[in-house]
Amino acid sequence: MSRIAARLAELGLTLPEPARPVATYVPYRVVGKEVWVSMQGSVSGERRYLGKLGAGLGLEEGNEAARLAFLNVLAQLREAAGGDLDRIAGLIRLTGFIASTPDFTDHAQVMNGASDLAVAILGEAGRHTRSTLGVAALPLDFAVGIDAVALLA
Amino acid sequence: MSRIAARLAELGLTLPEPARPVATYVPYRVVGKEVWVSMQGSVSGERRYLGKLGAGLGLEEGNEAARLAFLNVLAQLREAAGGDLDRIAGLIRLTGFIASTPDFTDHAQVMNGASDLAVAILGEAGRHTRSTLGVAALPLDFAVGIDAVALLA
Amino acid sequence: MSRIAARLAELGLTLPEPARPVATYVPYRVVGKEVWVSMQGSVSGERRYLGKLGAGLGLEEGNEAARLAFLNVLAQLREAAGGDLDRIAGLIRLTGFIASTPDFTDHAQVMNGASDLAVAILGEAGRHTRSTLGVAALPLDFAVGIDAVALLA
Repeated sequence: MSRIAARLAELGLTLPEPARPVATYVPYRVVGKEVWVSMQGSVSGERRYLGKLGAGLGLEEGNEAARLAFLNVLAQLREAAGGDLDRIAGLIRLTGFIASTPDFTDHAQVMNGASDLAVAILGEAGRHTRSTLGVAALPLDFAVGIDAVALLA
Repeated sequence: MSRIAARLAELGLTLPEPARPVATYVPYRVVGKEVWVSMQGSVSGERRYLGKLGAGLGLEEGNEAARLAFLNVLAQLREAAGGDLDRIAGLIRLTGFIASTPDFTDHAQVMNGASDLAVAILGEAGRHTRSTLGVAALPLDFAVGIDAVALLA
Repeated sequence: MSRIAARLAELGLTLPEPARPVATYVPYRVVGKEVWVSMQGSVSGERRYLGKLGAGLGLEEGNEAARLAFLNVLAQLREAAGGDLDRIAGLIRLTGFIASTPDFTDHAQVMNGASDLAVAILGEAGRHTRSTLGVAALPLDFAVGIDAVALLA
């Protein structure tokens, strides 16, 4: 078992099946050593975080939503890396789209769910630059969406 | 006539004049083989899609707005490619900014207007990663804005 | 004194201390010749621009907020360049996140504060592609957030 796969098991985490393309866009694209990943939503099978922070959804749920969206990103990266998570040499950028009311201001705490998980799983390679913003709404009412640019070894 | 130019003609489409820089930013920038394109709005001459999805603007208009914004992106890419659309080797990323009310959730269907058109025009090279989000508002009240990163041959 | 440092002094500007990482993400990351900078907010020490354009915050304040956010971006770039601003060969992309009410439409004018300053300080190297959007809210109630991708010599 690879180092990162072992780390996932240790954390008791299982990656979701990577979402298949449902339209004319693709979930990821490899350009040289970079992988660009399409925005992944906070949903996986039965688990789903919908709605808005500041209107019904609390910080803890937002945090879980960000973790789930990040696991979806990671599932795409594993696919892009030919199944081998150890080939992920680094995360360059995560952008966190947080569906929120205009008066919500704790977007960073929500997005920490993703950032902390990235480092817990990938170690130093999981450190990333980050932009976090509160959006009016997301497709399918996702509470959180995350896209990424990463580096393959 | 180039292959892609022929395809455009076949689809009955004409690219708008690429918008000129109106400020200290530029419409595109070539970095190695990558082209980064500034956000293009859903307006071209007399044609303009303004306002918000979920408040007056319907899905069909949103779709048309996304197509128009994408044609503006493509016009910039043609310029970046020295006028030759066949030099566009691939689209890496499209980000779709959809001005919407907080309760609108069909952003993906709106953005499909751009994604489907990209593949209709560019073929396999038109497949791209994509992030789509509902924003509170866009400059000049655009209904849709799209930015891009593409690859030149 | 470096050319750009002299230009800063001439403009009467001082770069803020680059914000330190407060979580598991990093303020910038160098990938080959590119530097990716995390979203920087419109706050520096005592100076802070919070709230929303279209609701209390006027255009002039928005403009100042964009300038401040850009100076924070530049402070990170200086750090990434080992302290030497002259090593910044170009700005590739600035994304301007403007916290605004749904009926505000002057986001471009707000963001010009950043774009004009980029060129005033960096000259031709300061010209950039740009995407500007009105977001529902930003972390910590920032009025403006800016992220960047730049090129080192």
